[in-house]
Amino acid sequence: MDAMSQDQIRINQITKISDTSHVNLFSAQYLDRKNTEKQWVFASRSNRAVQSFPVSHLPPDAVVVVPYHESLGKLVIIREFRVPLGGFQYGFPAGLVDTGESVEDAGIRELREETGLGVVKVVKQSPAVYSSSGMTDESISLLYVICKGTPATDLNEDSEDIEVLMLSQDEAGKLLSEPELKFDVKTWIILSSFAANGVIGQGV
Amino acid sequence: MDAMSQDQIRINQITKISDTSHVNLFSAQYLDRKNTEKQWVFASRSNRAVQSFPVSHLPPDAVVVVPYHESLGKLVIIREFRVPLGGFQYGFPAGLVDTGESVEDAGIRELREETGLGVVKVVKQSPAVYSSSGMTDESISLLYVICKGTPATDLNEDSEDIEVLMLSQDEAGKLLSEPELKFDVKTWIILSSFAANGVIGQGV
Repeated sequence: MDAMSQDQIRINQITKISDTSHVNLFSAQYLDRKNTEKQWVFASRSNRAVQSFPVSHLPPDAVVVVPYHESLGKLVIIREFRVPLGGFQYGFPAGLVDTGESVEDAGIRELREETGLGVVKVVKQSPAVYSSSGMTDESISLLYVICKGTPATDLNEDSEDIEVLMLSQDEAGKLLSEPELKFDVKTWIILSSFAANGVIGQGV
Repeated sequence: MDAMSQDQIRINQITKISDTSHVNLFSAQYLDRKNTEKQWVFASRSNRAVQSFPVSHLPPDAVVVVPYHESLGKLVIIREFRVPLGGFQYGFPAGLVDTGESVEDAGIRELREETGLGVVKVVKQSPAVYSSSGMTDESISLLYVICKGTPATDLNEDSEDIEVLMLSQDEAGKLLSEPELKFDVKTWIILSSFAANGVIGQGV
């Protein structure tokens, strides 16, 4: 199919349609495969006024740390109050990558701030991958690390309410079997793998 | 710690602050652990005017299908144009759960519409899990299925541009090694596991 074919989707313009400090809505005007003009509204952490092309998603918006405490043989997750859920969620330590900060540095910093644990070794860093591309352009990198130390939450911010959980394979399975708990999707997938066969993935 | 302690986060009110048809921003006024009033803005697929408590996230907003073509020994993913990313993403077939529709029915429907494949057996349905709870309350269920048939995209909508990929373990590894491709995070995690050891998870 040649580049001039109408049988492809083309974005004409993307405009910011809200004005808050951390997340905003953008409206994309696009032509569908039958050349009909349509609109797609999505959320973004970006503060750009108008989107340019091609879209760059590097560095990722955020880092999600998958911490394995090797000397204890335990996967580390946190139970954290999440305002958008109106309750506690079980997930991995995570946070926004600061301007100029590397994904690795951000991951090491967030793990320390949220759990008190230190990084022994970074095992793998994923590329920037997308959280839910139907509704947002948010991208994250997964940082698989070996960690050490004893959990501490004295570095939590006042807007954070965090409990650190260190899970053996059996404990991961028990946690997943509790029907009323809320899990982050990435954490649910990796915990399930760990519970089933003791494997976290990415060589860990 | 007793329930009256100030050392916990409390949400006072959640208000809708935009007016679009598919995704909106909500502003939560809350008290942090030091009793300081703060605001957390997040995106939601909900159209409620004011959030009530406790927050219900059932049924999930969307279903994400993890399809394994057993007779071919291949994992099925799609390459799909995603307007919020301004380009193509590699991900699993997925879509919103319609009002009154079960997660299983929605997954079977989306798989057929997006890939032309049929479901032989539903292996596992995850609970409602959260896409990225710092910025959105969006929840999804993962539906692990055994599928059959030959890919076809004639049921795609005009706003969809989809190519179906059937991946062996080796092909999954090759795709993941291409640095310029954009992956959905759930797909990246499960493809990585499949590439490393042939295991998709959840008994598949």
